Amino acid sequence: MNKKLPIGIFDSGIGGLTVVKRLNQLLPGEKIVYFGDTARVPYGTKSADIIKQYAMQITNFLIRFDPKIIVIACHSVSSLGTQFLESRFSGRTFIDVIEPSVLDALRFTRNKRIGVIGTPATISSGMYPSIVRKIDSEVQVYQKPCPLLVPLAEEGWFDTDVTRAIISHYIDELLDKQIDTLILGCTHYPLLEKAIRKVVGSSVSLIDASGATGTKVKQILETKGLLNTKHSKKPVPVLYFSDLPEYRGQIMSRFWNRKDLIIKKVRLGEDPDV
Amino acid sequence: MNKKLPIGIFDSGIGGLTVVKRLNQLLPGEKIVYFGDTARVPYGTKSADIIKQYAMQITNFLIRFDPKIIVIACHSVSSLGTQFLESRFSGRTFIDVIEPSVLDALRFTRNKRIGVIGTPATISSGMYPSIVRKIDSEVQVYQKPCPLLVPLAEEGWFDTDVTRAIISHYIDELLDKQIDTLILGCTHYPLLEKAIRKVVGSSVSLIDASGATGTKVKQILETKGLLNTKHSKKPVPVLYFSDLPEYRGQIMSRFWNRKDLIIKKVRLGEDPDV
Repeated sequence: MNKKLPIGIFDSGIGGLTVVKRLNQLLPGEKIVYFGDTARVPYGTKSADIIKQYAMQITNFLIRFDPKIIVIACHSVSSLGTQFLESRFSGRTFIDVIEPSVLDALRFTRNKRIGVIGTPATISSGMYPSIVRKIDSEVQVYQKPCPLLVPLAEEGWFDTDVTRAIISHYIDELLDKQIDTLILGCTHYPLLEKAIRKVVGSSVSLIDASGATGTKVKQILETKGLLNTKHSKKPVPVLYFSDLPEYRGQIMSRFWNRKDLIIKKVRLGEDPDV
Repeated sequence: MNKKLPIGIFDSGIGGLTVVKRLNQLLPGEKIVYFGDTARVPYGTKSADIIKQYAMQITNFLIRFDPKIIVIACHSVSSLGTQFLESRFSGRTFIDVIEPSVLDALRFTRNKRIGVIGTPATISSGMYPSIVRKIDSEVQVYQKPCPLLVPLAEEGWFDTDVTRAIISHYIDELLDKQIDTLILGCTHYPLLEKAIRKVVGSSVSLIDASGATGTKVKQILETKGLLNTKHSKKPVPVLYFSDLPEYRGQIMSRFWNRKDLIIKKVRLGEDPDV
């Protein structure tokens, strides 16, 4: 396989840009092709069937660029669709955001009590506790779906009184369980990190998937001899979106305020059943 | 046209059930076929192009039932797509939720200062001020997009401290303009009416589109001689959704806690561009 092939990455919307940003910092020589499904965002409140169907359409789009690896930046797709994508696109390498976060959390926890916050789809999949249990059955996992945090992050209410009140409402019951590590199980949540930190205090470790996922992508490319180390040329990430309302453009700058990104619109199709 | 034909009605998700409920109370003899696009909800943060495309697909689905009238229960589609649908489906009668709300507001206002709250798509369309101006150019309209209110309503945070704080954040600037009438320009907002009332005080009239729209549907059917007055049989509304996650089912009961509704899932197709 050619080292010069791009890294493909996708998310339900713009949240995955936290992972793109991290990958771009960590691997500045790599071409990155991103797809954000802004025409159908959010995924986290939808069914497993619909999420899988959308993920398959997006992967069909990304493989046009023949990516050497595909990063599933969406926690809802990572939870519900990774195995499905691997079986549908055998031969392709997928990296999800769940396992890297779990490994990081297991490294950080001292009392073996880990909290996970995420969308309703991610939490109800049970994927986090299942993966933790496989690696270390002594670890207790406490989960909480936090549906209001995505809209709060998208609207830029990063660290207001209201934001902290909503975070407390969700997280207090996890703190009552004496967790010492909290996985931020959604690409939007790093934007709220300051507010989350104030609510949980200084003794709880916060695990942001983008760091761990970036490191895993680098490791896998190294192992396969596919790392593009020609850092002299720094390709600009190419970002495809299924919808580009002005409104979402404003929100995007909250995720990554960089002017030279290449932004394109593309429409994904479905089989016409109706 | 046959009186026995159903009333078609659609929304981006489950919010339009506030209108279905009202229509069913007002016209218990009418068959109602509803479509909620839960696979792609919400619309209010998406572009005009995408919203029109989705509205066209839904209308193509509804006309299979040959409805005698089609109610656009979604304010975002009403604002951006009514004329488009009327030109694409000439001969069909569409009722949107904008004009009925405006007429109600003009009846209620005494100082000719009207506030409008809605999704970013609805507000940025400028449709409310434009329709008000056509009818009475002396009336001042003050608008405010309120993107966090839909998720708050969907999550059942109807009247909490946080809800009132967010509503104040949005509405205080409208109150500073001394509005005496406020249009709730989104099908979700009636669920927050109690909290909105506490923020605006007792002197501001709240205009809920479902009432005015129901009345307009009744008038038009009467005028056309299409009212189905055989009240002996009370058909149960049939509700189609493009996705049926358990999560959304729980939310639905917040809109209409009625056990005998007929609920079906249907997938809408798109032309496969990709």
